[in-house]
Amino acid sequence: MTTETSAHTVMQRCDMLGTYSEESDRLTRPFASPAMHKVNEIVAQWMRSAGMSVEQDATGNLIGRYEAQSPGTKTLLLGSHLDTVRNAGKYDGPLGVMIALACVERLHARKERLPFAIEVLGFADEEGLRYHSAYIGSKAMTGTLDVEALHLIDADGISMEQAIRSFGGNLDPDTLPTARWQRDELLAYCEIHIEQGPILEVQKLPVGIVSAISCQKRITVRFTGEAGHAGTVPMSLRRDALCAAAEFILAVETFARSVPGLVATIGQADVQPGASNVIAGQVTLSLDVRHQDDNVCEEACRKLEEQARQIGFARNVAASWQLLQEHPSVPCSPDMVRLLTQAIGELGYSPLSIASGAGHDAVILSELTDIGMLFVRCRGGISHNPAEAVTAEDVAVAIAVVERLLALLAQEAP
Amino acid sequence: MTTETSAHTVMQRCDMLGTYSEESDRLTRPFASPAMHKVNEIVAQWMRSAGMSVEQDATGNLIGRYEAQSPGTKTLLLGSHLDTVRNAGKYDGPLGVMIALACVERLHARKERLPFAIEVLGFADEEGLRYHSAYIGSKAMTGTLDVEALHLIDADGISMEQAIRSFGGNLDPDTLPTARWQRDELLAYCEIHIEQGPILEVQKLPVGIVSAISCQKRITVRFTGEAGHAGTVPMSLRRDALCAAAEFILAVETFARSVPGLVATIGQADVQPGASNVIAGQVTLSLDVRHQDDNVCEEACRKLEEQARQIGFARNVAASWQLLQEHPSVPCSPDMVRLLTQAIGELGYSPLSIASGAGHDAVILSELTDIGMLFVRCRGGISHNPAEAVTAEDVAVAIAVVERLLALLAQEAP
Repeated sequence: MTTETSAHTVMQRCDMLGTYSEESDRLTRPFASPAMHKVNEIVAQWMRSAGMSVEQDATGNLIGRYEAQSPGTKTLLLGSHLDTVRNAGKYDGPLGVMIALACVERLHARKERLPFAIEVLGFADEEGLRYHSAYIGSKAMTGTLDVEALHLIDADGISMEQAIRSFGGNLDPDTLPTARWQRDELLAYCEIHIEQGPILEVQKLPVGIVSAISCQKRITVRFTGEAGHAGTVPMSLRRDALCAAAEFILAVETFARSVPGLVATIGQADVQPGASNVIAGQVTLSLDVRHQDDNVCEEACRKLEEQARQIGFARNVAASWQLLQEHPSVPCSPDMVRLLTQAIGELGYSPLSIASGAGHDAVILSELTDIGMLFVRCRGGISHNPAEAVTAEDVAVAIAVVERLLALLAQEAP
Repeated sequence: MTTETSAHTVMQRCDMLGTYSEESDRLTRPFASPAMHKVNEIVAQWMRSAGMSVEQDATGNLIGRYEAQSPGTKTLLLGSHLDTVRNAGKYDGPLGVMIALACVERLHARKERLPFAIEVLGFADEEGLRYHSAYIGSKAMTGTLDVEALHLIDADGISMEQAIRSFGGNLDPDTLPTARWQRDELLAYCEIHIEQGPILEVQKLPVGIVSAISCQKRITVRFTGEAGHAGTVPMSLRRDALCAAAEFILAVETFARSVPGLVATIGQADVQPGASNVIAGQVTLSLDVRHQDDNVCEEACRKLEEQARQIGFARNVAASWQLLQEHPSVPCSPDMVRLLTQAIGELGYSPLSIASGAGHDAVILSELTDIGMLFVRCRGGISHNPAEAVTAEDVAVAIAVVERLLALLAQEAP
């Protein structure tokens, strides 16, 4: 069985899973939905055929276990999530589970066991579509899901607890805050995921190594000038909040371009009063800043806040800055980065390191074990969109890299 | 009777008229409303006491006529409008009618007649609050109101025709498209109005002369780039529509500042998809450009359109330009500007010429006769707001200027 054959199977499986949706005309597969139930059943069947024992935990996470050469060894976790956003593509999540499954399938076909067990994980919720609370699956599995979250209500008035029970989960809120594994039982977690960005495509590389999952800060920046009549207030007497905001938008762009790896985005602008014949009196901007290094992110925000104030000062426009949310950076384990680098290099590809600007289940798993992530090139960097696309050729490379990783880990195993 | 005494009366009358509203907690006096009825009754009574014959035309315009020394002479029109916007100030409109009335009152007190008749006009609708169609009053009086407008419906489902009939107007749709006067019966129309801008306040002048009512162009400018994930698309690979829009907003400001008298305003910005974690894919801006010279306005739009395209081109973002509306400039008559300049100069004030960026009844009257406009300083340039304010001192100067204008016109009368 060549990696090309396995990649072909992965592509077909992603196509098939992509047909299980809660909406007839597009792919929408939320946590604990009938579509998730069906997908778990199908994937469980594939896992069993690949020699794995299969379990579905209380919150609907799917776990396929492939035993080691001998009992009492550590466990390597591989996988990603099986839920989707609304109007999703077929690969964000499921591709990682299918590639992990393919690698085990290939071991099983060769009747090969490793000096560690492998668990292939299909997380029940990463996207947070149903309860606007991401990572339900990985949090439950690592014992970090807040029991209070069980009282969250979905759009139909169904609580998370009810949803889990009707999904078939043997839910015990008392044991919910318990991790599935002890730290020393685990070797690492390696997640395989589409890049969701255009870097691999631009660099003409099939796969990349995630260096860290970036820190993120979300800020509200508000400029308050003075509204006025668009026809009667001369340019020299204006305190136009939108002109101040425009200057800041460009300052953010210029600054982010000057710092390698920094991304800063203004995606929302609310202009008040918002009439074509009235000078803007107040403009509220969203600002999203990410970098793999917390210090760079922190320093960027400090400088941008200073720039907002300077721009406001020069225009006699008040500038306010409100930090809404921040997540620290989560570095991938140096060992996993080293092994993935070696695996990719041995296969003849340039091992490119990328910071992940998007969050992943690996963030949650990092609280319990070493993490690594392998990115697979996706067309146009597009994700969360039916236009999501990967090639069978790149999937074959990803399978080969994970196989090589397993071999390297086996060599290093005690 | 000093001009100060007359100004005091004007201030008291504006206060009083400001209490007639369709809303209990704020001043809102739409076309053909009970509040307008009451105001017309009160002003008619003041007009009669000032020696005028009074008439209310079919659409509710109030006309007070003060006869000339001898019959068969021309008529000078003075005044402004008596309706208001929602949540209005007391002076936008009524102040001009009250100052005109005060000047006639002073002639009457001196038993003085001029070699021309004066008609003081209180227009029934300038703001267009009720039917979203401005200048109903002056259009009806000049025979330019489209008969179709009678079928417009207000928020309560009442047609303009019904409204006029229940207001008491002796409406005959067949004679509606007829002007009240022949062109050669008129000397000119001089409107007195608050500035609605801050120029007089900045220049420390009580009054100013309007040179022209600016031309106005309204344009929709749209930038279309590519939406993307705020965390995963590096700065160098973005086609951010909001950054392009920001560059254009600043280009508009810089260009307008460089052309004397030009005002250009972006008061609306719609950002799509408009999420904090998504790079803006499309931004739609409103653009409002005004200048007293049509050619300057035209040339400005040509240059700004070119800049929008250049900014888009450099960023690989599409730029589109759609002209929504344009009104040509309406110059004030050189004779009226000359006489107002002389009148203000003789009173010891610097005669400052200002282009009116806002529209006025004078625009409509210009189709029938020469027009002139006198602006009165208003606090902070604020209008369409309960904070509108003028001083009795400035009103006294305005009365003196109009009196002087009458004297100069009398000297020049054949």
